[in-house]
Amino acid sequence: MSDRRRFLKSSAAVIGGVAVGGIKPAVAQRMDDTSGEYWSLGYEPNTPDDPRVYGQRSRYVTSLRTYNPKRTRATDDIHTPLQDIEGFVTPAPLHFNVNHGSAIPDIDPSTHKFMIHGMVDKPLVFTMEELKRFPSVSRFHFVECSYNAAPPERRYPDATVARTHGQTSCSLWTGVPLSVLLKETGIKDGATWIVAEGGEAKKRTKSIPLSKALDDAIVAWGQNGEPVRPEQGFPLRLVTPGYEGPANVKWLRRIKLGAQPWIAHADNPGHTTLRPDGKGRWFEFEMGVNSVITRPSGGQQMPGRGFHPITGLAWSGGGAITRVEVSTDGGRTWDDAQLEGPAHRFAHTRFYMPWKWQGGEAVIMSRATDEHGDVQPSLHELNQIYGVQTDYWLKIKDSRGHFNPIQPWRITAEGSITNAVWEI
Amino acid sequence: MSDRRRFLKSSAAVIGGVAVGGIKPAVAQRMDDTSGEYWSLGYEPNTPDDPRVYGQRSRYVTSLRTYNPKRTRATDDIHTPLQDIEGFVTPAPLHFNVNHGSAIPDIDPSTHKFMIHGMVDKPLVFTMEELKRFPSVSRFHFVECSYNAAPPERRYPDATVARTHGQTSCSLWTGVPLSVLLKETGIKDGATWIVAEGGEAKKRTKSIPLSKALDDAIVAWGQNGEPVRPEQGFPLRLVTPGYEGPANVKWLRRIKLGAQPWIAHADNPGHTTLRPDGKGRWFEFEMGVNSVITRPSGGQQMPGRGFHPITGLAWSGGGAITRVEVSTDGGRTWDDAQLEGPAHRFAHTRFYMPWKWQGGEAVIMSRATDEHGDVQPSLHELNQIYGVQTDYWLKIKDSRGHFNPIQPWRITAEGSITNAVWEI
Repeated sequence: MSDRRRFLKSSAAVIGGVAVGGIKPAVAQRMDDTSGEYWSLGYEPNTPDDPRVYGQRSRYVTSLRTYNPKRTRATDDIHTPLQDIEGFVTPAPLHFNVNHGSAIPDIDPSTHKFMIHGMVDKPLVFTMEELKRFPSVSRFHFVECSYNAAPPERRYPDATVARTHGQTSCSLWTGVPLSVLLKETGIKDGATWIVAEGGEAKKRTKSIPLSKALDDAIVAWGQNGEPVRPEQGFPLRLVTPGYEGPANVKWLRRIKLGAQPWIAHADNPGHTTLRPDGKGRWFEFEMGVNSVITRPSGGQQMPGRGFHPITGLAWSGGGAITRVEVSTDGGRTWDDAQLEGPAHRFAHTRFYMPWKWQGGEAVIMSRATDEHGDVQPSLHELNQIYGVQTDYWLKIKDSRGHFNPIQPWRITAEGSITNAVWEI
Repeated sequence: MSDRRRFLKSSAAVIGGVAVGGIKPAVAQRMDDTSGEYWSLGYEPNTPDDPRVYGQRSRYVTSLRTYNPKRTRATDDIHTPLQDIEGFVTPAPLHFNVNHGSAIPDIDPSTHKFMIHGMVDKPLVFTMEELKRFPSVSRFHFVECSYNAAPPERRYPDATVARTHGQTSCSLWTGVPLSVLLKETGIKDGATWIVAEGGEAKKRTKSIPLSKALDDAIVAWGQNGEPVRPEQGFPLRLVTPGYEGPANVKWLRRIKLGAQPWIAHADNPGHTTLRPDGKGRWFEFEMGVNSVITRPSGGQQMPGRGFHPITGLAWSGGGAITRVEVSTDGGRTWDDAQLEGPAHRFAHTRFYMPWKWQGGEAVIMSRATDEHGDVQPSLHELNQIYGVQTDYWLKIKDSRGHFNPIQPWRITAEGSITNAVWEI
């Protein structure tokens, strides 16, 4: 029982006592030096607005998320202000958010249930309280929209890094490994896929290979030390490290095991990309190796000539970031940046490079490499795979998922910074 | 410039334009499909109260900090609700807070300055912007009040774990190693100590060995991915991993190097403990190896017989936690708990042990060991060092710092849970 609820209950009892027997009122009892009972309650019933019980940030800290007002879906396409993030964790109030048109469900955790069924030996339904009886793990993982950093949003010359890349965020996720729960249910021979279903109005579903479920997926109730935020799936989210956003099913209510993938809500070709042979991938899960310079970045202004280090974030659906290179001359030469270690697997990793801006024009960009040796492509390299010209990206209206080319920022002689994604 | 400030500026310009030249009003311009300029602004001026730009927790999540209303210092002795924390990180709004009677200063980071002087080759003054040009590190560290878990607050039978142990919290701290800044200033031969000064009204100071400053101290501006919270030292805090709270100087404005310790504000004997030979330690920095069971814990009620795992937090000023043992029979027998790895150095570490409660009386407790082999003492062992009887702790009015004996919780046959600290 929370302290607040205990307070309300205790107060009621004492007030009842006053009415019938003249017992000291609660306030006096609270001031009693030897009483521990009321110690934690404060002078008045606590409310979350009281900064003594729920702290607030400085009035000088005004960083906010941004969103696209043209969307009628008011809780969709909300972007993290990557330019303001310190270190590699995203504060929960600034986590990006995409809900695909569903309102955020208002789920009471005391009645929420999560079912595992299908090709299992023993279907099971868990309450939140039952899930929390299992040994927990806590791991840092990014979640990234499959359309993050994609055209057409990435096309605008005046775009900030919040707009171009702000649909990835990194949290400490706490929960029980899905593999532990699947040990409880057992797995029938022949099962190779799961489908996970969320609890929002649309009940979005996503097919995921069983191998991933057994490898490192987490049924998570904690985010950065507190319960998962409503926008991120409160009270329960499936976290599939390194997999595209839709595979990290929010408001998780059901997982079914089967012998083939389902044609689920989020299993549409818009989420996939072309192969070099021109055929489309039907299922694509891992987000590509990616990076972006967050300071200096689009929309910012260089404060003057001199020493201005370059810093940013790198991440990969393939695992840990092992190297980030930075170029300050439009890609002609590259230098290794420092990584702010340790680089957690499937997590944002901050990089840093000292740099002295001489005041002339410069194009700065970063290129990440992951533990498999995968290197972030240039737009030119990506175009060769897709078989398109750069013009294509400027004209298409639909987004393309899994779009991870190098992001250049152009610094003018006057020190203003613009998006140069199509220029190199 | 933040998006919000940019919005205000842009709006003013456009409205001015309407007045003199009939330019399209800002709202229409924002709806223009090809304009990127206003994309990030929303339909209306954003305010932090808008959950679209600054997210909120679920209305079912009501965990709050608690404080002692008997204190006239309204921002002192604010405790973390350890029983509600997920994983090992403390959410910033729930971080404990002790200010020693000073109001939280309202510091404008754009004018804040930090000086290093004394026995250095070249005294330097840094602005926040200058500090952020250095390569940053991000590390998990607990900060713990030297009086955490101490009598007399720990004496009450009905105390919750928030009350007994809630003056320790764990954050991801981001900043520049102090050693990097001291390379810039140089260090004169013979310097062996630093004194660090905060920017609150009282300008609290604390002497710290130079060896610690060079080893792993961080001049931190980031906490859990956002700027350090005002209560925790915004805009700048000295983080001295594993050292008692006062050595983690908040609102950091000055560090002076010298050849001996100062008799500083926080260098008083109340913060130190007795040695086995009966002499007092003048300076004591490292917090002892400690742990506490957070669930089930004081004030909670067992929901019924059956499987109820035991979980809690362990930490040590000596480095990483390497082992936590749990007893469910009042200390007669002990079993190794699982650690939720990796156990970061000088950070909270979660432990877990499966347990089946049979419905009878039980006394549960945990005992931590750190990387140096230091083992958390029993109260009996601690009494032998202090040369006192248990009665002493029940009667003293002043707190004793660095008080880390094992914390037992008594579970009655009816399942209510009380503080049994003096019973074993």
